[in-house]
Amino acid sequence: MARIHNFNAGPAALPLAVLERAQSEMLDYRGSGMSIMEHSHRGRTYDEVHRRAIALVRELLDVGDSYEVLLLQGGASLQFAMLPMNLVHDGRSADYIITGAWSEKAYQEAQRAHRRARIAADTGVDNVFSRVPKQEELQLDPDAAYVHFTSNNTIFGTQFHEFPDTGSVPLIADMSSDFFWRPFDINRFGLVYGGAQKNIGPSGLALVIIRKDLLETARKDLPSILQYGIHSSKNSLYNTPNSFGIYMMMCALEHLSELGGLDVIERRNQGKAELLYDAIDTSDDFYRCPVDTASRSTMNVVFRLPSEDLEQRFVAKALEKGLTGLKGHRSVGGIRASIYNAVERRSVEALLGFMDDFKKTA
Amino acid sequence: MARIHNFNAGPAALPLAVLERAQSEMLDYRGSGMSIMEHSHRGRTYDEVHRRAIALVRELLDVGDSYEVLLLQGGASLQFAMLPMNLVHDGRSADYIITGAWSEKAYQEAQRAHRRARIAADTGVDNVFSRVPKQEELQLDPDAAYVHFTSNNTIFGTQFHEFPDTGSVPLIADMSSDFFWRPFDINRFGLVYGGAQKNIGPSGLALVIIRKDLLETARKDLPSILQYGIHSSKNSLYNTPNSFGIYMMMCALEHLSELGGLDVIERRNQGKAELLYDAIDTSDDFYRCPVDTASRSTMNVVFRLPSEDLEQRFVAKALEKGLTGLKGHRSVGGIRASIYNAVERRSVEALLGFMDDFKKTA
Repeated sequence: MARIHNFNAGPAALPLAVLERAQSEMLDYRGSGMSIMEHSHRGRTYDEVHRRAIALVRELLDVGDSYEVLLLQGGASLQFAMLPMNLVHDGRSADYIITGAWSEKAYQEAQRAHRRARIAADTGVDNVFSRVPKQEELQLDPDAAYVHFTSNNTIFGTQFHEFPDTGSVPLIADMSSDFFWRPFDINRFGLVYGGAQKNIGPSGLALVIIRKDLLETARKDLPSILQYGIHSSKNSLYNTPNSFGIYMMMCALEHLSELGGLDVIERRNQGKAELLYDAIDTSDDFYRCPVDTASRSTMNVVFRLPSEDLEQRFVAKALEKGLTGLKGHRSVGGIRASIYNAVERRSVEALLGFMDDFKKTA
Repeated sequence: MARIHNFNAGPAALPLAVLERAQSEMLDYRGSGMSIMEHSHRGRTYDEVHRRAIALVRELLDVGDSYEVLLLQGGASLQFAMLPMNLVHDGRSADYIITGAWSEKAYQEAQRAHRRARIAADTGVDNVFSRVPKQEELQLDPDAAYVHFTSNNTIFGTQFHEFPDTGSVPLIADMSSDFFWRPFDINRFGLVYGGAQKNIGPSGLALVIIRKDLLETARKDLPSILQYGIHSSKNSLYNTPNSFGIYMMMCALEHLSELGGLDVIERRNQGKAELLYDAIDTSDDFYRCPVDTASRSTMNVVFRLPSEDLEQRFVAKALEKGLTGLKGHRSVGGIRASIYNAVERRSVEALLGFMDDFKKTA
């Protein structure tokens, strides 16, 4: 079977060239006589992969010396716990901006950790989130340990196109579905984190970029594996890392770099999103995007059809035509096309062709 | 280059057949038009892999309904923290049997979690651990929340050939380098855990087998991702799992099952270890195993040469002959040959041939 058009929300499509490389190196990584999976994480061969992966993160996102790059396990979900455990202390609390299910989860986990989380904004109306807040809607605590937000909301298809201004309070973003698809200014942030499985690799790997002053003030009386400071002091080799995941991320970042970096991929991603939103907006309301225009996500394009019955037929028919992953998140229904870095323009064009046909015959 | 003889301590050798399968399925998993890495962890295709992996664990280890099998991230190191956080409460403490660096680390992390860990035995003499304790040496607290031990000590090359008897106190083992190479009676244990990267897969994946009564009494006020109960209630899909790692483990366990299961692999592993220990013991003290005979590990065969200089030459010369991973752990020096499931008898024979040659020319 040919490769399918993959619109999964994550784990998601990977570049064919990256998979082909992993395939060709599977039995023998660069003449070492073994797979990268079989190398010791303390050996020179793996160490080069590890350092190269971190160097590519720094290069692509222009991360300066005042930040550390950590490669961890446990995904964004472990970060929901590590953030408050490490950074909320000295009697302070942390501000959370609620724009959907994931930011809510991050808030709840901060509450579980030590009941010192506060809601600074909430754009939900009856559990539906159709937009991100404006700056003037944020009710920020000037003494907060940090302000947390989810910069792209995979489920509701909303995205911050301008980041919140939090003054001197460290800004923290869950960027799981939002990094490495465009350049952004890391210096606006105290910490950004995310799982790799949307734009830059497979699941089982989380990336944390943390400003060094936050490392210094972070708590040091936690179990070692939950301390940012310990991972940093060991260059993310405190414990055995997900070495194959890191190798795959390195391959994906090299691929991105060869394409021309984040400026090039941003133009491609914007182009894909425009195509899709245009098709929705000019469909005479057959397709309808429930998200405020200013909050629409470039990564996850969410839309509805006139009925749930039609939506089910749309998903089933699409699959027959080799278009997969289009079912909306189980909590909200509808249609969702995730169009991360590795989703090619021809896949979006195939989707547009299908949408056109489906509308005519529906 | 041909495949090398890989004696790495972990990440370690994987069966060639498993790597070849992963290679052939890399671009298109079973006609789905995408890699298993690109599948949604909520989709039917991945779900079958996930369930099959768990079913194989149950089948191979004969795990009954009174236990749950969890597939987690963070390796054994995260378990060092999760164990005391989940299971030490109600004013009790936990007993730790110290037989080397890893059991010491587990103890220290329990202390960090809430200073309620106790040493029940310690076989170290000046930081050297040449044996595991006898039953009569254990000073057990009858009210302990559990007794923890490391059943195989990768660094010092010692192994428990009989498990401690702890009466009604739950017995917990770090089996990272000790499971799936032979059958054992899971019903002796409250919980066993380990990273997959020695005998059954790549790094980035930990397996926890926990008795259900411990799940029920475990703490429920921790961050969600640190609770055994939450992972269990979601069948290890609370958060996005390391899906490729689980797929690789499934492949490795299927391979093990096709070979004939744990009885067959145990005979092979015993045979490999006997070959190697015999060669050491009959080398007229040129090679010398520092471990008490009754405590010798079947997985990690540790030995010394007459001088450190000779040891360095041994490791370098071996590499020239296509034998890798033989350097002892940086904390203890010497030579270590890890001979897990995927290390073939012909690799051990190649090592014996080399040892013989080296001795003659040294």
